[in-house]
Amino acid sequence: MNDVQNLRNLRDLSPTELRRLIRAGHYTSDTTGLAMGYIQGNLAILPSKYALDFATFCQRNPKPCPLVAVSEAGSTALPTLAHDFDLRTDVSKYRVFRNGEAVEEVTYITDYWRDDFVAFVLGCSYSFEEALLSAGLPLRHIDLGREVAAYETNIATTKSGPFEGGMVCSMRPFKPADAIRAIEVTSRFPLTHGSPVHFGDPAAIGIDDITKPEYGDPPVIEPGEVPVFWACGITPQVVMRQAKPDLCITHVAAHMLITDLPSKGSAEALPKLAEA
Amino acid sequence: MNDVQNLRNLRDLSPTELRRLIRAGHYTSDTTGLAMGYIQGNLAILPSKYALDFATFCQRNPKPCPLVAVSEAGSTALPTLAHDFDLRTDVSKYRVFRNGEAVEEVTYITDYWRDDFVAFVLGCSYSFEEALLSAGLPLRHIDLGREVAAYETNIATTKSGPFEGGMVCSMRPFKPADAIRAIEVTSRFPLTHGSPVHFGDPAAIGIDDITKPEYGDPPVIEPGEVPVFWACGITPQVVMRQAKPDLCITHVAAHMLITDLPSKGSAEALPKLAEA
Repeated sequence: MNDVQNLRNLRDLSPTELRRLIRAGHYTSDTTGLAMGYIQGNLAILPSKYALDFATFCQRNPKPCPLVAVSEAGSTALPTLAHDFDLRTDVSKYRVFRNGEAVEEVTYITDYWRDDFVAFVLGCSYSFEEALLSAGLPLRHIDLGREVAAYETNIATTKSGPFEGGMVCSMRPFKPADAIRAIEVTSRFPLTHGSPVHFGDPAAIGIDDITKPEYGDPPVIEPGEVPVFWACGITPQVVMRQAKPDLCITHVAAHMLITDLPSKGSAEALPKLAEA
Repeated sequence: MNDVQNLRNLRDLSPTELRRLIRAGHYTSDTTGLAMGYIQGNLAILPSKYALDFATFCQRNPKPCPLVAVSEAGSTALPTLAHDFDLRTDVSKYRVFRNGEAVEEVTYITDYWRDDFVAFVLGCSYSFEEALLSAGLPLRHIDLGREVAAYETNIATTKSGPFEGGMVCSMRPFKPADAIRAIEVTSRFPLTHGSPVHFGDPAAIGIDDITKPEYGDPPVIEPGEVPVFWACGITPQVVMRQAKPDLCITHVAAHMLITDLPSKGSAEALPKLAEA
């Protein structure tokens, strides 16, 4: 079986089948384009002493940190997102942080697991980009096969305990009429960052050079286009690193947590998990 | 000064002025019709050992429990809702529960205050009723000067730790075309219970007798009208009583927590508190 066939087969897998493959150690790559039609999420695992402050940080900053699930302390399950989830094994690649420093990338966190771990799952922008494309809006970075550009800005988040810092924003360029439509469309997706936080002058939000994003690939902005900025899911990772918890585990970028929840119809609210 | 003049003066007060009056012990009644144009909220205070489970309960059940603020453990402030809030004194009447039983109603909780208290503020239906009226939709209970009818139902909430139980729903009767409009309007208010959870047959959600609500006044349903049911803010109080925390403090019904946040424009998201 060659790689292309392999990939086609992967794309046909249900979320459960895909997670079984990941759990068995047979798939350790990114989840872009897999389990299409199902919600994927960003993962952050913290010892319980930080959990309430981080939950409150998410409540106070719903655009960068749209909370879609919280686990029970010590439980490896995510009962509202999937029937059989195991937080120790079911993400294709994890990153381990000690005191804010990335120390390791691993495919299982079984050896790290502690009885006081609480997992947070945050919405990711896949759903809203799907919605923009469905609305006929072009997405330059996808057309070019690049990663979306994201920037550190001076837009302050609202502090909670040790968690604070500037918002990271992703940028997508649009003509003004398309920008208006993009604002309309994304405002209906509060669980995946919602409406933008800024458009136009990058300097107004502390971006010195739009051609040099801190994350992702440099953008291509055509004449007559306006840069439109959305709160980005990288924000909680930056905020967590600055808070320097003694231990923290996240997914590796693009190696998302795959849920059993259909992404269609999840615009305003998270759907209920269907009976097993 | 007679009572009517008194009431008129009260209605002219800003949220800050009103809270000062409450803090000084000069106002201990309900807040209906006061500080119009500002968000009011339901209050629940719990010892921190229950706080993460309750925050997660709210995350899992956003329709009955739309979380608009969480305090830092031990802090008496609500920095995202008001500049000068004091959780010990600024609600006009509190109810104290021990092991799930109401034991006292008080105007201050200074003597009860503990360094591990965490306060939760949940959206209340005032904003969405304002929006329904603005959309030209009649609200029968308001026309009749009654309290809205609310029922215990068999719609299950999603459990978190010790917090679980049936959803309490408020009911407003509408003709079908008005019901459709009411669904549209309230769907834009996720922070104040959002769109309805049921309409039509009361028995389908476990209500035996629509004329006998567990809370509020009996409803008047005219021929051709359909009962429409929304998740109700009484739900978290019922759930908390069933969880029997050793100590828990809430507001007394209709004696709401008054914020400095304008209710206008708060449909999709909570506004930022203006600079002091």
